[in-house]
Order: sequence, then C-alpha cells, then structure tokens
Amino acid sequence: MIEQLHSKSFASDNHAGAHPAVLAAVAAANAGDAPAYGDDDWTASLAGQVRSEFGEQATSLVVLNGTGANMLSLSMMLGRRYEAIVCPETAHIATHETGASERVLGVKLVTVPTRDGKLTPGDITARLGGRGNISEVQPSVVSISQVTELGTCYTIDEVAEIAATAHDNGMLLHMDGARLANAAAHLGCSLRALTTDAGVDVVSFGASKNGALVGEAVIVLRPDLAEAGPYLRRQTLQLASKMRFVSAQVSALLTEELWRRNAEHANAMARRLADGVAGLPGLDITWPVESNAVFAALPAEAIAELQARYLFHLWDASLGIVRWMTAFDTSAEDVDTFVADIRQTLKSLSS
Amino acid sequence: MIEQLHSKSFASDNHAGAHPAVLAAVAAANAGDAPAYGDDDWTASLAGQVRSEFGEQATSLVVLNGTGANMLSLSMMLGRRYEAIVCPETAHIATHETGASERVLGVKLVTVPTRDGKLTPGDITARLGGRGNISEVQPSVVSISQVTELGTCYTIDEVAEIAATAHDNGMLLHMDGARLANAAAHLGCSLRALTTDAGVDVVSFGASKNGALVGEAVIVLRPDLAEAGPYLRRQTLQLASKMRFVSAQVSALLTEELWRRNAEHANAMARRLADGVAGLPGLDITWPVESNAVFAALPAEAIAELQARYLFHLWDASLGIVRWMTAFDTSAEDVDTFVADIRQTLKSLSS
Amino acid sequence: MIEQLHSKSFASDNHAGAHPAVLAAVAAANAGDAPAYGDDDWTASLAGQVRSEFGEQATSLVVLNGTGANMLSLSMMLGRRYEAIVCPETAHIATHETGASERVLGVKLVTVPTRDGKLTPGDITARLGGRGNISEVQPSVVSISQVTELGTCYTIDEVAEIAATAHDNGMLLHMDGARLANAAAHLGCSLRALTTDAGVDVVSFGASKNGALVGEAVIVLRPDLAEAGPYLRRQTLQLASKMRFVSAQVSALLTEELWRRNAEHANAMARRLADGVAGLPGLDITWPVESNAVFAALPAEAIAELQARYLFHLWDASLGIVRWMTAFDTSAEDVDTFVADIRQTLKSLSS
Amino acid sequence: MIEQLHSKSFASDNHAGAHPAVLAAVAAANAGDAPAYGDDDWTASLAGQVRSEFGEQATSLVVLNGTGANMLSLSMMLGRRYEAIVCPETAHIATHETGASERVLGVKLVTVPTRDGKLTPGDITARLGGRGNISEVQPSVVSISQVTELGTCYTIDEVAEIAATAHDNGMLLHMDGARLANAAAHLGCSLRALTTDAGVDVVSFGASKNGALVGEAVIVLRPDLAEAGPYLRRQTLQLASKMRFVSAQVSALLTEELWRRNAEHANAMARRLADGVAGLPGLDITWPVESNAVFAALPAEAIAELQARYLFHLWDASLGIVRWMTAFDTSAEDVDTFVADIRQTLKSLSS
Repeated sequence: MIEQLHSKSFASDNHAGAHPAVLAAVAAANAGDAPAYGDDDWTASLAGQVRSEFGEQATSLVVLNGTGANMLSLSMMLGRRYEAIVCPETAHIATHETGASERVLGVKLVTVPTRDGKLTPGDITARLGGRGNISEVQPSVVSISQVTELGTCYTIDEVAEIAATAHDNGMLLHMDGARLANAAAHLGCSLRALTTDAGVDVVSFGASKNGALVGEAVIVLRPDLAEAGPYLRRQTLQLASKMRFVSAQVSALLTEELWRRNAEHANAMARRLADGVAGLPGLDITWPVESNAVFAALPAEAIAELQARYLFHLWDASLGIVRWMTAFDTSAEDVDTFVADIRQTLKSLSS
Repeated sequence: MIEQLHSKSFASDNHAGAHPAVLAAVAAANAGDAPAYGDDDWTASLAGQVRSEFGEQATSLVVLNGTGANMLSLSMMLGRRYEAIVCPETAHIATHETGASERVLGVKLVTVPTRDGKLTPGDITARLGGRGNISEVQPSVVSISQVTELGTCYTIDEVAEIAATAHDNGMLLHMDGARLANAAAHLGCSLRALTTDAGVDVVSFGASKNGALVGEAVIVLRPDLAEAGPYLRRQTLQLASKMRFVSAQVSALLTEELWRRNAEHANAMARRLADGVAGLPGLDITWPVESNAVFAALPAEAIAELQARYLFHLWDASLGIVRWMTAFDTSAEDVDTFVADIRQTLKSLSS
Repeated sequence: MIEQLHSKSFASDNHAGAHPAVLAAVAAANAGDAPAYGDDDWTASLAGQVRSEFGEQATSLVVLNGTGANMLSLSMMLGRRYEAIVCPETAHIATHETGASERVLGVKLVTVPTRDGKLTPGDITARLGGRGNISEVQPSVVSISQVTELGTCYTIDEVAEIAATAHDNGMLLHMDGARLANAAAHLGCSLRALTTDAGVDVVSFGASKNGALVGEAVIVLRPDLAEAGPYLRRQTLQLASKMRFVSAQVSALLTEELWRRNAEHANAMARRLADGVAGLPGLDITWPVESNAVFAALPAEAIAELQARYLFHLWDASLGIVRWMTAFDTSAEDVDTFVADIRQTLKSLSS
Repeated sequence: MIEQLHSKSFASDNHAGAHPAVLAAVAAANAGDAPAYGDDDWTASLAGQVRSEFGEQATSLVVLNGTGANMLSLSMMLGRRYEAIVCPETAHIATHETGASERVLGVKLVTVPTRDGKLTPGDITARLGGRGNISEVQPSVVSISQVTELGTCYTIDEVAEIAATAHDNGMLLHMDGARLANAAAHLGCSLRALTTDAGVDVVSFGASKNGALVGEAVIVLRPDLAEAGPYLRRQTLQLASKMRFVSAQVSALLTEELWRRNAEHANAMARRLADGVAGLPGLDITWPVESNAVFAALPAEAIAELQARYLFHLWDASLGIVRWMTAFDTSAEDVDTFVADIRQTLKSLSS
C-alpha cells in the first residue's frame, strides 16, 4: 500500500508559499516602468520602514537569498584579509552554505561547539588567544543566529552581552536573522530592541521564511559600514535588476507588523505541536521550543513510519533527532492531525 | 521650468515591469506547500520545457540574477585554477559586474578590443600565444554575449565558428544570453539553433529583460559539466529556497514562445526608433540595430535636452554616444513621441 | 639579576642554522650562468634523486616554504570548487598558516578533534555524511601531518589504512611532511615506504627543519596530478627565479641519506631529553616521544623559570604544556645541561 | 653540426648566479641558533639599513620571490573588496604571474596600453570614469614598474606626478621595483629619491636580479599600512622560517651600495651592447636603453641563428623583437663577443 503524503509539510518554513499580502504587493509594484537596481519608489519606501523598525541610522540592502544576505553582511564587516569569524559549530554559514564563506569571502570560520546553538561571551574570549600571533587568523567578527539553527532564542540581554564582548575586543557582531521575526515574536519585543539597541552591527533579515516569494534584506546598523554595501551587493551577486519587486515583498511584511503576526502564528503552531507530543513514551523534546521549530528524539522505526506520511527532516541520524518546522500557514488542524499520527505511531510501536 | 519626465523609459529593458503572464504564473505557483530548493513540480516542468527548447541533453539551473547566471556558468566551466576567460572588452562580465569574475571566481579575463562587440575566431587564437608558458594564465573558456552589449548579433554561423575554434583549442564556449531571446527573434531561429546546435556549452539565459520579475536560468548543454552545478549554484548564492516561484516565471516565458513574442516586439520598437531618427542632421546610428537597442551619436546639447525629459544612458561621454533600449511593453506611440522629440531637439539646435 | 639565555634553543628545529653540506651545495651551485625557473642542472639532478627515493612515478616541485608546499600540494589536489579538506584540529594548515587555505585556496577545512594529533579512518568516514547534499561542502582531500604537530608518528600501516579509506571514498591523501625525515628515522623505513607505497598522493617534503637554508619540496606521487603543478607553483608564489640554489639544498639533504642522519640525531636528542626528565616530580610527558619533539606538562612557575634561561614554546597555557624541540645540531651536552636545569628547577620548587 | 651554446646568457638577469658578497653573508649568518620568522639579529640589522636608504618611516618585510613581493605589497594596499589596480598592459603582475593577482588577491587589473611601458597621470584619470558606479570596480591602487618591463625608466618627476595623481584621487602608489637598483643607477639618484621622496607608498624591492640567491623585500613607506604586513606575509606564503638567511642577502646588497655597483655594471654592459649594435643593417633598437635591457628588432633568420648560440628571449614574435639582458656579472668581453656575432650574422644575411 502506498501511503499518501500529507499535504502540509513540517520539513521547513521554506515549504510554505507566499503570504497573499506579499503577492498582492508584487502585483501592485508592476505599475509601468521604474528605474532598475533599487532607484525606485518601492525601495525608497522600504528604506523609511526600515528606519522606523530598526532606528534612524539603519539602512537596508535588499538581497536575493539567505546565503546572499549572510555573505554580503559579512563582506561589509571584514576589512583586512587575515581575519576570522567566530560562530557556533551549528551556524548556517558553517554548515549549509556549501563553503561560501571560504570561497566567496576567503575567510576562516572559527567554530565553537555549543549545547543549544547559542554562543556565550566566554566562547568568544576563549578564541582570542592567538591575538597578535602572525601565524594565526585574527577574529574580527562574531556571527550568531537568532533564532538559532536549533530553534532556540537568545534573550535580549544575551545578545547585548555578546555585542559588548565583541566590541570590547574590537570585533563586530553579525546576526543571521533568517528567523528574526520568530525571535522577536517569541520574546515579545521589537526588532529594534533585539538588534540595534542590543548592539548588533549588521543583520541578515529573513523574509522568505516569513512569507516572501524570494528575497531577504541586509540591515546595516553601523553607518560607517554602509558605504561599501551597494558595490559588494552587486559583486556578491545579490542585486536584482527589477529590485522593486523584492523591495515590495519586504515592505509588505513590514507593513502593520505582518511579520509579527506571521511569526506569532508559526510559533504558536510549534508550541501546540510540542505540547501535543510532550510526555509521549519514547519521545523527548531535545531543545527548548522558542520559535517555530520542534526538535524531538524518537525511535528510528517511528521516524521511518512518520516520514512515509509527512515531510520533515531527520536532523541527526545517530541520535534519532528530527526537526519539525511550522510556518505562517500551518493550521491548528494540520498540527492536531500530525500529533494524532505521532501518538498513534508511538503507541503501536510500544505495544 | 521643471520638465516632466516621460513615463516610458528608454534606459533599459530592466525598467519594464513584469509581463502579466509571468505574474499570473507566480500567483498560480502559490498553491500550498511545496518542497524547497528546486524539488518542486514547477521546476520539474521547466526542465521538460528546457529540453524541448534546447535539446534532450540540456539541463537547467534557475538562478536569481544575470551576474549570478554568468558566475555560475563560468564556475562550472573552469577546472584547474590557472585558467583565463577570453571575452570582448565590452563584455558585461568585464565591465559591469563589479569584479565578480576576479573576486568570486578568482579568474583573469583576457579582454579583446572589438569594433562591434563581437569576438572573432582570430581574436581567440591570437590570445593563445602563452599556451604552455607557466608564467601565463591558460585560457580555457571563451565568453561571448548574444545579443552583444552594443546591440549587435552574431549569426548562427559566427557562433558555430567561434565554438569550433574554442573546441579545437581545448576550450569551452559560454554565451551570456541576457538578451538571447532578442537574438533568436532577430535571426528568426530557434533557441536551440543558436546555442546547442551551434556548439555552445553553457548559456546564461536571460529572463528578466524579457518580462520576468526576478530570475534567470543557466542552461547546461554539455552533460559532463552538469554534476557540479547544484553545489556551485548554492555556493555562488544563486539558490532560492522557494525556487518554484522563479521556475514558474521562466516557465511562463517558455510557454508558447512568449519569449519570442516579447523579444520580437521589443526588437520591432527599436527598429521603429532607428528608422524614425535615421538621417536626422547631427545624428548617427553607431552600430547595426539587430536587437532592442539603438546606439546613436548626437550633439552633447541634444543629449542634455533629451535627458531632461527621457530616461536613457549616456554610453560614451567622450564620443557623445547614447543607448536607447526598448522592451516588451514599449508601445509604438512611446517610440513615435520620442522620435518626434529627438527630431524637434536636433532641429532647434541646428537652426 | 639578568639571566643569560642559553645559546641552544629548544623552541623549534627552525632555530637551527643550515647544515654545512647544504651551505657547500649552495656555494657549489654558484657556477656561472644557469637558466632560471628550474630549467637547470641542479633541478634536473634532484629529479633523479627524488625518483630514487620515492619511486619512478615521483616528480618534484621545489618551493620556498612550508606553507607554500602545503598550499601548492593542496591546490593540485582540489578540482571542483565546492570541496573540503579533512584534517586534524591540530593540523598546521588549520592553525598556523594565517588562513591561507581559506584565502588562497578558498577551501573549507573540516577539522577533527584527536587525542594525539593523528587521524583515523573512522574520523574520515564520519565526515562524509553530507555526501551528495548540495548545501554542504564535499570532502575530497584528506591531509595528515607526519610527524604530527604533537610529535607523534603514524605507523606505515596507519598511513596505508588512511590512504585506502580516502581512495575508497574517492578522495586523495596529502601528507604534510614538514618532518617526514624524522618520521622515517623513527620508523626505520625508507621515505618511499612511508609515502608512495603507503598510498600517499602528494607530499609536502620538509627540508628547512632538516638542515636547509630556505626551501622545501612538493613530491607528486600521482602522475595525473603533476601537469598543473608548474603553473600552480608560480601562481601560489612559490617559484624562485634562481631555482638552482633551492634545488641544490634539497639535493644535498637527499645525498647519501643526509636527511636520515640529521633526523636520527635530532630524534635521539629528544629521546635523551625525555629520558632525562622522565619521572621528575611534577612533570608529565604528554604525548609519546616519536620524533624530535618532547611535550611535557609542568608547573607554571617551573615553566617561567626555565623560559628565563631557555627558548622554548608554551604549547598550551591552560594545561601548562610546553614543547621542546631538538634539531640536527643539538648536542648531547645541550640536552644534558637542559635536563639538569629542569631537574634543579623542579626540585627547588618542590622543596 | 651542433652549435655550442655560449656560456654567458643574455636571457635574463635571473640567469646570473649570486654575488660573492651575498654568499659570504649567508655563510656568516649560519652562526648557531637564531629565532625563526624574522626575530633575529640579521633582520633587525636590515631594518636599520632600510631606514637609512628609504627614510625613517620605512619598514621592510623580507619575502621569497618577486611575485610574492608584489602580491604582499598589493594585499597591504587593498582594503575594501571591490577595488581595482591600474597598471600598464605590460606590467609583470598582468602578464607573467599566472593570474596571481586575480586568484590570490581577487582583484581586477585595469590595464592600460602604453607606448613604452610607462603609465602617465592622464592614463590614471582616464580610468576613473566609473567612480561611484556600483557596477564597476573602483580603482584604488596604481602599480608601476621601475625599471619597466620594456627596460625604460620613469624620471623622478614622472614618478612624483603619478604619485600626486594617485593621491589626489584617493589612490595609493605601488612600485614594482624588481629592477629598482638599475633605475637608481641609471638616474644617478638614491633609492629614497626615487621612492619615498617621490611619493611611492609601497615598493617591491628586487634583490634576486641584483645578485641575491633567493629573496626580495617589500618596503612600506606609509606607516599606517605596515601593521597588516606580517600577517599578510605569512598568509601569502612569503615567510621563511630561517629568515636570517634571506635578510642577510638583502643586507649584503645594501651594504656600501653594493646594489648600485651591481646595477651600474649591468647597465653599462647593456649600454655597451646597444652601442655595439647601433646602426647595424636590419637592426633597430625598439625602446630607449635606460637600464640593463636592450630590446631590438631584427630579421627572423638572424634571431634564429643567434638563438642557436646564445640564450635570450624572443619578446614579440610577430614584430621580430628580442630582449637582451645583462647582469652584474656580464663582462665586457661577453658583450663584445656577442656584438661581433650579431654583426657577423646580420652581415652574412644581407650579403
């Protein structure tokens, strides 16, 4: 018997489509001719929204994908050519960008093992032992992901302490905010509180996972870093000619905090999923559920059975850990059906 | 008195919006969840269309912008690390990609002065004098633009001769086809005749200038080059997560030869413009009008007057050459109004 | 009272001067004009010696320093542009080359924690989980150091097993042999047994630490990798114009196994040093003494006192581990004096 | 009949051996142990000599070859990652370094056609048209060769004007001084007058062609550029462990202006050669003889006959131009014999 794959994917928030407001904004931007490469009204309008959200010194560079956002951000922050970036071992830039940091930036990533995907100030200072040693790379940028790749969130204070540690040591702080909206929703704070006010220097601000079609934004919070941005955006292959169509998408998400509503919904669905499976025999939630991801360890047979019916990722085969993601369009019914199936699967295995 | 800027831009085919069929295809692709990173139905469907257009061995990699298409194409074609790319001095990769070839690929461009933007077989062989000299880079790829940056087109025979010369010398042929549609429309041939059958190895196939929102495609015509593509696409920052929305655009343009209708119209408008201004006193058409571009030399005062009312680029300030581009949505009325204004401007200056 | 620094350094085998035979060979090579860039008699003669030592398929590329040898070796072994190199966390390429791998090669190093600086076959296969995943770099080269950076040696069988594992998985094996002579001396085997016959593909063969002035050699054991070498040597800044003077040095060390005598002596001096301090209160030898290095843990005060009189490196400040190196010119008396001082220092601290 | 090759090469000043004083200095530096990587007495002593020659602000970084000197110099001068270097089309960095600039630095060279290998201020300003255009690389460094690759010399005033033009436009000036000694000898000025006082920022100071074994030096004349040097030297594979042996060579050449005597002799021999062949039928001196190179056009048959007996390079096959180089050890007799053979060859052909 061939199992029917459930239509709602729990594999990634990237499997969701676009939010209707985003599609509408793209259609509305198709209004005759407009200058290319960002010299258009939609991009200008977005610039104002970014200042409102992130503070008056904030400037934005719309880009085309998440790796592009990260590479452009980091290339603006790296100056001399013997630097290194300190980041967690689980960082997306270290694990899932096919070596773009090394190839496109030519920079070494100094990766730090962590328990929960979160870097600490001590992790940073412990990597500075080679300062002044000409045979060693000189760390000059710290990169953290908010939400982390393990679904956890830094508190505002934790970000601020990392920023202070970075700055005290002459380094800059980058935030890979592919799911920044989910973090702000989880913490109930503004985007500004979590970035500008906490001392972050450059943010990769995720739009795709929040409901965009294609596009993200780099938010530059240190004005002295901004000048190089437009050149580097073109060089790192992140400048679209008809930029208005990307700006319009990010703009739609920033309008009346659509980003927050989308993120709150996705987070709530993850919470509902985690609550639904909590305490099931043989299942352990492996990291705190602080965003739209649930990581759980469960028996290999259960994973296999569930993967026959649902799309989701096996995160760590050796430990039997899976990742379940929710999105802005995940419904309570989707979750409840999934929970019921997980429950049934585990029950039949234990009997 | 402040002049009113004419709403139709002649600055670039990038100033046009998206074709309605492209927008409709994007909206239609927003149908619930779909796997990310190209494992979706729209991308699969596009693969079939690409085989129909370019031949059975053709595979496609949808990408995010034109420079990305070029860098991905070239990175697939470069093997050892001491190679060079032979291209015209006017090549987009040499002049308008902010050094991406050198930075992202680490490769030297051996640029050739040309009269009309077109490379000849002799231009290639003349750059092979350093073969085997370990102090010199070893050219291994030829890159030509079709349409060229000067609006001219290679004939099919010219492409075939370049391909043969490249292959006879152990090199590969890349075609920057940002305006490939316009070339095929001008020559009245299929895309396949101009690429696969002429011996091209990899094509950057332009969609943006032909009516897409954001997105292009790399067409790989040599199967042995294809394996590396997906890795390099991710590494060169060209993989969108919600790839279906990009594939759907390219797919729409390939459906019932929409690409050809769009290109034919744009070309016809350029022809109408060129015919309209031909013979005006003080104005010279500088290169043959073989696509959707008209290059003309005219007096500096005329340029200044016209730029106060129309968006277009000054191509060469020292020679007084301007570039006028038309697009799929340029109307005959747009052109006629512009022609009348050019005529009037030149007349008033000569009087 | 200012302490007098002992004239014999235990900091590095790089602190030694040149062997008299090396100097004599350089002087002898100064015989009138000779073609530059390696087309000279001394380089030709060295090629024959390399074939004798490493096997008939071996070719050599003389280079200028150890990092250069490693970068040239690895650049010859890397093909596509999304690869990675698997190596121990302690590898010189990962720790002491100021990010040259990332900057010059653009490649990611996948580093493996080890107990003793030595990689195992299991370490390699455990890093291949991302094979075929386009978001991850694809490991294609294994790099091991023989002697390791912790003074330990792989046995011939261990090298052979690593080579087999690499080859079985479609990877190549690089050996950073900055102290290959010391390893062959320790194991009592030929250079060939430890490299060619064990399945190594390319070797960075160290000359400086063995008595050369300036210069090393890359030994290519897979003929199909050799073609690119001369171009890459020039590109990686490793081609000297008056190459004869570098070839003559390596040649002198390969003449009548001078390399082995130098290495055996250095190893014996390390052995003498280790034996002399074994069992001293508060001192622990941290890794097996299998070459010309002794690593020992001892109290911080003892380290401070000894560093006032002797040049040597504090290897790990947090663990109180020091590194003592011997060289071809370290005398038994040098060692005995040092041992006596260590003994005296520890005794006075414990009393 | 097999011709006997004349023992004195006119192919390159690299074909000469080492000056006896250089060899003696190397032998003298072999005095027991010394700290590695430049922390030695010979390097310290050289630093003082460099200050005496180039001015108090000058610092030096000894390196291993000419391409290394150039790449290190330029890497210190490049900051942001979208810059370009303006240089003559004939520049060594553009033609004979196997693409190291593009590969190792990731930078575009904007090459300028010249009549005599010399850049002019106007050549520089003419390349600044793309300033502020984000699609174009932004030139930030000018690189000139003194002596040029065509054997010509810039006057002090010419260098000063180029430096002023560079600085006025926010650019830095690099001098590839592989034959700086020959230029200073030709102009009868100090090294300082030709570099520091003329406004040069960083110099690749050639030693090999002036009598060294292996080694060159980078002279940094702008103190704010110096900090990055030691890190970049290691990263660009230019740091030798036993640096004292390289420093001692450069030091020997700087002692009592040995560099000048060597260069004056080489220049005089080129002058003698040029004078000897001037006016011969069918032979034209193609560029002014202002150093130790003579470029001459002569019939293909004459070139072939002479190359059967003498080592020298065919510079341009299509134009029949050859390059004849002299060195510190070229004797008047060597020249006179060569002149006689050239005369005889041309005479026999014309008869």
